[in-house]
Amino acid sequence: MEGVNVRGAVQSYCSKLSWQKRFPISIWLPRYRLPFLLHDFIAGLTVALTVLPQGLAYASIAKLPIQYGLYSAYMGCFVYCFLGTSKDISVGPTAIMSLLVATFGKTDPKNPLLHDPAYAVLLAFFAGVVQFMLGFLHLGALTGFISAGVIAGFTSISAITIAFGQVKHILGIHFSSETFLDDLIMTFQHIKETNPWDVVIGICSIVILLALQLLKHREMSWEKDESYTPSRGQLCTWKFLWLIATGRNAVVVVVTALIAWTLQTQGLADKVTVTGPVRQGLPPFQVPDFSKPDLFSVLELGLAMIPLIGFLEAIAIGKSFARQNDYKVEPNQELIALGCCNLAGSFLSAYPVTGSFSRTAINSQSGVKSPAAGVVTGAVVILALSFLTPAFYYIPKSALASVIIVAVLKMVNYKIVLALWKLRKIELLAFAATCISSLFVGVAYGTAIGIAVDLLIMMYYIARPGIKVLEPLSSGQMARPVDVETHVQVRSTAAVVVQLANSVYYPSTEYIVDVLNEQLHEKDYTRPVIVDFSCVSGLDYTIVEGLNDALNDFKKANAELLFACTKPNVKALLQKADLDGMSIHSTVQDALRSLEES
Amino acid sequence: MEGVNVRGAVQSYCSKLSWQKRFPISIWLPRYRLPFLLHDFIAGLTVALTVLPQGLAYASIAKLPIQYGLYSAYMGCFVYCFLGTSKDISVGPTAIMSLLVATFGKTDPKNPLLHDPAYAVLLAFFAGVVQFMLGFLHLGALTGFISAGVIAGFTSISAITIAFGQVKHILGIHFSSETFLDDLIMTFQHIKETNPWDVVIGICSIVILLALQLLKHREMSWEKDESYTPSRGQLCTWKFLWLIATGRNAVVVVVTALIAWTLQTQGLADKVTVTGPVRQGLPPFQVPDFSKPDLFSVLELGLAMIPLIGFLEAIAIGKSFARQNDYKVEPNQELIALGCCNLAGSFLSAYPVTGSFSRTAINSQSGVKSPAAGVVTGAVVILALSFLTPAFYYIPKSALASVIIVAVLKMVNYKIVLALWKLRKIELLAFAATCISSLFVGVAYGTAIGIAVDLLIMMYYIARPGIKVLEPLSSGQMARPVDVETHVQVRSTAAVVVQLANSVYYPSTEYIVDVLNEQLHEKDYTRPVIVDFSCVSGLDYTIVEGLNDALNDFKKANAELLFACTKPNVKALLQKADLDGMSIHSTVQDALRSLEES
Repeated sequence: MEGVNVRGAVQSYCSKLSWQKRFPISIWLPRYRLPFLLHDFIAGLTVALTVLPQGLAYASIAKLPIQYGLYSAYMGCFVYCFLGTSKDISVGPTAIMSLLVATFGKTDPKNPLLHDPAYAVLLAFFAGVVQFMLGFLHLGALTGFISAGVIAGFTSISAITIAFGQVKHILGIHFSSETFLDDLIMTFQHIKETNPWDVVIGICSIVILLALQLLKHREMSWEKDESYTPSRGQLCTWKFLWLIATGRNAVVVVVTALIAWTLQTQGLADKVTVTGPVRQGLPPFQVPDFSKPDLFSVLELGLAMIPLIGFLEAIAIGKSFARQNDYKVEPNQELIALGCCNLAGSFLSAYPVTGSFSRTAINSQSGVKSPAAGVVTGAVVILALSFLTPAFYYIPKSALASVIIVAVLKMVNYKIVLALWKLRKIELLAFAATCISSLFVGVAYGTAIGIAVDLLIMMYYIARPGIKVLEPLSSGQMARPVDVETHVQVRSTAAVVVQLANSVYYPSTEYIVDVLNEQLHEKDYTRPVIVDFSCVSGLDYTIVEGLNDALNDFKKANAELLFACTKPNVKALLQKADLDGMSIHSTVQDALRSLEES
Repeated sequence: MEGVNVRGAVQSYCSKLSWQKRFPISIWLPRYRLPFLLHDFIAGLTVALTVLPQGLAYASIAKLPIQYGLYSAYMGCFVYCFLGTSKDISVGPTAIMSLLVATFGKTDPKNPLLHDPAYAVLLAFFAGVVQFMLGFLHLGALTGFISAGVIAGFTSISAITIAFGQVKHILGIHFSSETFLDDLIMTFQHIKETNPWDVVIGICSIVILLALQLLKHREMSWEKDESYTPSRGQLCTWKFLWLIATGRNAVVVVVTALIAWTLQTQGLADKVTVTGPVRQGLPPFQVPDFSKPDLFSVLELGLAMIPLIGFLEAIAIGKSFARQNDYKVEPNQELIALGCCNLAGSFLSAYPVTGSFSRTAINSQSGVKSPAAGVVTGAVVILALSFLTPAFYYIPKSALASVIIVAVLKMVNYKIVLALWKLRKIELLAFAATCISSLFVGVAYGTAIGIAVDLLIMMYYIARPGIKVLEPLSSGQMARPVDVETHVQVRSTAAVVVQLANSVYYPSTEYIVDVLNEQLHEKDYTRPVIVDFSCVSGLDYTIVEGLNDALNDFKKANAELLFACTKPNVKALLQKADLDGMSIHSTVQDALRSLEES
């Protein structure tokens, strides 16, 4: 606040380094070497094998026509390649973003089971604008206000909501629902309509996916044993198994689609519920439709939650892989990159995207070297949209549901309950508030409620900072601390020391003045009190006013109130305030000595 | 949180002392002595002399029919007598509450210059409910979240808005306006319609009020000179002057009303703008009209601001007079008392009331001994409503306007700008935000914006707590602190000490981990870092998770990260967390020694 160097700020803003930071491709591209290309190509292709089935599946979570999952899967990859600071992150549709998009949608009058895609695209546009602005203003730290407990509650309930939302597809029954409870009731109401073909395909898919997932984890552990040199044949088998295991979503989808196609050729067309016709070709380039009715009353809280949670997801993934692979991600640049991904996507009918944990892991394990791999992924998605859509017709809906269920169930975090119970039980309140309210009002509002509970808990501690009352016997000694809460009687021979053990902010003013007055209003009226500011690193005006009130109270009671400030800035502030009757000392010992001398 | 003693809580809740605290009259009434009665009678009468003209005047600020000012002036006095904890506070309509009531009103279709009183009465009902609940839940500390800067901004702009809003009555022009700017423009547009009779009466009234106010302050200073013994005649003159000066509002109103009446009898009835017909008699006892259309969209933010600001006004006044007269007010009991005043009032057509500063001062100076004085005041108001309303017809509107202007102008607090500039410039932001936004959107929203700005500033400091990096040369020495902000290169021979100089909350997790990593990522990779928690009085789970991340980072870089905790609760929490690779020591010296030994 005090004297901003405008010229310096403008200069540093326009410097070459600053522009390079804004386009990280200008840093990694000059250092790119040819052998990287093969790695990036393989990684990009492997990620594409996952994003194709996931994209199709996630569109149904977002309650959008199935092609929108793929519309959202390529533009982000291209844009992130220029602006992203993590080599591993793969941007595209995710289960959680899809769930949030479904929350802030409006039923399409033409198809009551789905939402109008125009609102989802508008959401991508506004989320992009908000993320870009936050990044530009260096406000990435905002996500710090979502505590670990709320994040755990939010992801766990999202996973459960998403997984249970897919049970109807596994059972082959059809209805439209809004919340988790809604879904639960409707599923049981329609359970008699269960289609055994869908159930068989769904359960087999889940079993195969889990088996391949297990295989992958075991295979990874063999590879780590460096003392063992495998033969060429073994190596080939491993590579093949690795590919099957990594591309397991694609494998399941292709195999079940082949089964459905075979059934149809055998005249059993209406047995398995299939995806049905998918619009072929790329979406047109068009400005989002701002003329939609009730725009802001439909999107409402989504305008804040989608950019924030999208960024939270991406930065958590980015930081985790940056740790593993020894590089750094720049949060505010990531916000700008994500914002541009969403903005650009919204002109090509994409819904809000972010970094995907499963695909980023595949990317990293496939040996990705740079964000260029994203270009390969995006290109494959474009090819699929152009030529493969007729084949998508045969993908069984229950197979897509199994892809989702297996992907999200690992997101359930039950361990945090134990950790919070062990470390700080009050934080279970925020966790429980998030979980319970999410079940009733959806995860977006549930998370907002969880954040509010966390802030209220923090506010309580701010309004009631730690204060210790110490009773020194002389200037040479300091006796046992007495807790304010328990109101233990303080018998004093010399002075009472009130130690502000915490930083203090204005909401605690009344409390501090009350504690000081409590010391004064003990039986012995002339007992002096020393306020120890040694741990306080800053004061505000409201507290200074409160101290003034306390000084007046002490003066009226003919008692002394002394301040002991170790920190120079606190001392300077109090001296500037120049309160009537104030006596400032550097340490408690000095204050005690001045009392003894007077 | 941990194990609440339910039985003990219920017992203490039902104890005699606790019920006495809830009905403070049960404490003071048994100790009441007969001589108090005279004091309370005089004080109650003197206050009534002020509340009658003020009530009539404030109703026009609230944009209500004039009798509503008096409807609000008696029920509060009666209820407060039973429940209040301050002998001095006089409850009734105030300028600020009237302004807030006008903000959350709806134009009366029958009289476009005024609001529909039913909404104001409903506001009193809901404000009462909210205040009662806050008091019952012991949430009085909530007002601590309104800082001194915002209060100063709010009261100053309220005073200016109210005072300027009366200029039109002084000029004798008529129009309806919503905001301050609206008022400013309309006043200049209608300035040609100025009525010279009103101007003369208004300006004379202001001059007389200011002169009497000055006389009172001077007379007070004579009284303080104890060495001087006045004669009986002098004493009588002084008492007379004191009465005139204290009842100056009533004097001005009565004299100007007499002038207006005389003019009418002389056939000059339409020269001076008078109050006009006032509905005679007490309002009927009736349940507030909950069937009013758009109830909550009209009252909206008023449901939060009116109970909060009402309480803020009352408790500030209460505490200030409790200081002067050496007793204590109990904030949560005051909330309950105010809530009951508003609730009871709302059944008798009162609008929201609170403690009035000017009348509380008069009460105190008149030598009030107990809240019983309020009963006298209330009784006088009831008598006035029953018999005096025909006389109110003749009170000139410009005389009432002058009563308001003189009353509110002392509320403008310009000194705070200097104080904030001297002590903490960033708080001027919240002050300026309150003032500027109040001019455009009214004081209620302006204050909400000011509170938000204050919270944002505090959140910034919470997200960026003070961290000092110290570089000790050996376990025996501690060298100069290096400020993190300036990024001074830290050269180390032994270890870097990162001192968390402030309490830490979860929003600062990322920042703390980043600072630790910055120390790690200096040239010398094997440099150990000691985190000094000596000033930290509490940690939360999100920060523990962040410390776990930092430990992993250090392990990967083959560097040591040690924790030094003086406080037993912080040490216990870290030990319970049992992070991988964690090494906890009691002091920085211990940590340094363990490094030297290893």
